[in-house]
Amino acid sequence: MLSSVKENPLYKIVNPESIAFFGASNNVSAMGTTILNSLRALDFEGAIYPVHPHETEVQGLKAYQSVLDVPEIPDLAVMVLPTKIVCETMKACGERGIKHAIVISGGFKESGGDGVNLEKRLIEIANRYGIRFIGPNCLGVTNPHHKLNTTFLRYESPPGYIGMASQSGSFVTQVFNYLSQYRLGFSTAFSVGNEADIDIVDCMEYLGSCSHTRVIALYVEGIRRGREFIETARSIIPEKPIVAYYVGGSETGKKAVFSHTGAMAGPDRLYDGVFRQSGVIRANSVTELFDFCWVLGNLPEPGGRKVVIQTHSGGPGAEAADICGRIGLELPDFSDETTSKLSAFVPHTGSIQNPVDITFSKNWMDFFSGIPKALLEEENTDILLMYFLMPSEMVEQSMALMGMSKEKIETESKKFIKMCCDAISGILKEHNKPLVGFTYRSFRDHFIQELLSRGVPIFPGPERAARAIKALTRYYELREEIVKAGRQRD
Amino acid sequence: MLSSVKENPLYKIVNPESIAFFGASNNVSAMGTTILNSLRALDFEGAIYPVHPHETEVQGLKAYQSVLDVPEIPDLAVMVLPTKIVCETMKACGERGIKHAIVISGGFKESGGDGVNLEKRLIEIANRYGIRFIGPNCLGVTNPHHKLNTTFLRYESPPGYIGMASQSGSFVTQVFNYLSQYRLGFSTAFSVGNEADIDIVDCMEYLGSCSHTRVIALYVEGIRRGREFIETARSIIPEKPIVAYYVGGSETGKKAVFSHTGAMAGPDRLYDGVFRQSGVIRANSVTELFDFCWVLGNLPEPGGRKVVIQTHSGGPGAEAADICGRIGLELPDFSDETTSKLSAFVPHTGSIQNPVDITFSKNWMDFFSGIPKALLEEENTDILLMYFLMPSEMVEQSMALMGMSKEKIETESKKFIKMCCDAISGILKEHNKPLVGFTYRSFRDHFIQELLSRGVPIFPGPERAARAIKALTRYYELREEIVKAGRQRD
Repeated sequence: MLSSVKENPLYKIVNPESIAFFGASNNVSAMGTTILNSLRALDFEGAIYPVHPHETEVQGLKAYQSVLDVPEIPDLAVMVLPTKIVCETMKACGERGIKHAIVISGGFKESGGDGVNLEKRLIEIANRYGIRFIGPNCLGVTNPHHKLNTTFLRYESPPGYIGMASQSGSFVTQVFNYLSQYRLGFSTAFSVGNEADIDIVDCMEYLGSCSHTRVIALYVEGIRRGREFIETARSIIPEKPIVAYYVGGSETGKKAVFSHTGAMAGPDRLYDGVFRQSGVIRANSVTELFDFCWVLGNLPEPGGRKVVIQTHSGGPGAEAADICGRIGLELPDFSDETTSKLSAFVPHTGSIQNPVDITFSKNWMDFFSGIPKALLEEENTDILLMYFLMPSEMVEQSMALMGMSKEKIETESKKFIKMCCDAISGILKEHNKPLVGFTYRSFRDHFIQELLSRGVPIFPGPERAARAIKALTRYYELREEIVKAGRQRD
Repeated sequence: MLSSVKENPLYKIVNPESIAFFGASNNVSAMGTTILNSLRALDFEGAIYPVHPHETEVQGLKAYQSVLDVPEIPDLAVMVLPTKIVCETMKACGERGIKHAIVISGGFKESGGDGVNLEKRLIEIANRYGIRFIGPNCLGVTNPHHKLNTTFLRYESPPGYIGMASQSGSFVTQVFNYLSQYRLGFSTAFSVGNEADIDIVDCMEYLGSCSHTRVIALYVEGIRRGREFIETARSIIPEKPIVAYYVGGSETGKKAVFSHTGAMAGPDRLYDGVFRQSGVIRANSVTELFDFCWVLGNLPEPGGRKVVIQTHSGGPGAEAADICGRIGLELPDFSDETTSKLSAFVPHTGSIQNPVDITFSKNWMDFFSGIPKALLEEENTDILLMYFLMPSEMVEQSMALMGMSKEKIETESKKFIKMCCDAISGILKEHNKPLVGFTYRSFRDHFIQELLSRGVPIFPGPERAARAIKALTRYYELREEIVKAGRQRD
């Protein structure tokens, strides 16, 4: 059983009502100032108390010379300070009664030498005062549902459903823009840094109980608490999927990891085993990590691995079929009933076999209503994979050629595209089966944007789409194993 | 030896001075009209003679009731006609002395039944009059260097260097927009259709001798002239690379191909062998096909497989290192000299090993000049793989915080980004080594656009970048084998 999220020790770190902020100043080029500004850019609604030895005001906020002067006990301390004053600041926070901290400052264990001892001292102080903290040497956290972002980059998406715990801060901050391209967002994301106190397993546990989080993404350079990782994951998997990208499995990855965080990465097979046993889906890149999260967090459970491909062009259909087959997805045949339904929509130049290829000669609306309806009604369809292409300029051009005025075209072409997309989402609501799309169009394309806004995951090319579908089916297979094993134990 | 391009029988098909156009009308929804319009949209400079049984004018152009009435012998006939009148039209073209045609009309061999005989008749007529033709059942050709586009979609990029021969018309037309996102373009692209006369081998031969074509892309559903394919490819490889995506190798791909073009696809291993023997690089998707073309057509020859990674963030560096290692690229160590040069730029929080990680604490310009210079001077560097991230809004934000006026920021931030990009391209000119980039930013990003415009291939994530680098190194290995074998034969 997952515990209530508010009881979780990390709750106040990502849902603070008030923050003591150390390291921001009126020097605009200081990292602390940048982070304070990105926190405010997301319109954080709680109180922010900048603590600064000399200033009475920092970035327009009243500043306090000491944390002891702050008028209430802040829920959270954020430290972006020179290494040498972090320990004394942690102590002062403890004395003020603060119980949660994020230490962004580096120069600890990851630097070796004195840093190792300094980190030990930091842990001792925190333990003495009962402070739970993230870091040191991290890039902070973001919880857009709470308008919280303590990283140096602006959060760009609406609040989302991907919970992230990352042993690289870059894959929290530097993917804000990446995710926004796909209209994806974080529920809550942690850059765990050196994991001196709170580690990736703690974050996983928090995200497991967080109701905004529908899927958990992990970027892993090394897991220290292997048994706890497996147990925690197994307790989460029955309720939500976990996807992990592990980077230390190759020789080159291992070396890079060591120079990045000093973690001793383990052999690839060991991690394969750990993930397998945990029910965690393994991704092979950061791109896959978020691709998998997209479909897992957004689509209903497929009945199995049987993929039906719908296209209006033979090439993309053949490519999708080829790739699906290569990675172990099945392309089912159709019942006679479905075949006869399809015959009404597909001309003889097209194909009513899987992939279903309408070709270019028929009514566009069939592609968005009659055909997907028939395909989703087909018992053999577990997942529908559709090729999307409808250049706005082509729609507009056709309308112009029909003699429509420029003003009319603008509204009519948008209306037409909206009608197609509404048709698709209407049918999806009736049938609880997953739809995945692929395209070679730019994601700026109006049609693609309309589909994305209706929650249809669309990938640039069928390769990523097929791998994501595979991950989707894999999760439910693994979940079943874990649930079964749980029942047998009971 | 490759023959002169002007002697090639396909030359006039993609470089016509005049075109007889069959199938365009004043009915704006007719496919022929759409194609005529996209031909004119690219500002084709030759003469266009629409032939139409009733109209005296088609889309504002003087129309001719018969091709016999056209005032000169057109270099090319384009037919977008009902199946049943294609043969008689071909005959009329022959009588007028036309020697080249593109038959877009379908309903021939691919439809089975009567279509098979109709295609035989079409070939007989063409042979009788010495007409070489593309199709039937194709989507046309494009040669943007000659402002020619006989497909139904608008060509979107500047003239490029990728020569394409495709057994799916979609992968000519429907990638116009795709390529433009990466600032890539076609030199000449053929949709070969049923290959009744001109086939994919003929197109390869043409593209081999075409000076605008620096790399050849093939989309293959089935090769009929295997020996000629191998011989032609081997004659081209010493001068330019060929990349092929073969879709019929899996069971699912094979079935899809059969229902798409009726081609009988062969086993995967057979094609692997054919490509291997031909010196052709095999891609596993359309995305890879163009990724590989991008680096092969645009980058100098690398000395070998040794990749040096440059980053300012540990995570992306570790990911790149892991992926490079997994696919068989090497990450070399540096000489003492390089290490000492790097020490001057990289703070102790960073890494002067491979991946070189400057971290966030230093002067940005070092990242674009001092460090890549040192890395390209290093003897062990065959290829430089760089992580790119510089959000315009961050640059602008820093400038705003420094108190710059809004007007000044606009010009200064662009100037700063330009300076960084110029620095990189300056260094690349001095050192004849390939640079490949990757990013998680949107390709709309100003910085990414500036890099692309300087010819730096940039991939979304290191996975595609690494696979493209592998293809780049593979070509030169295969080329050496072929050149050696040629020498031994002599």
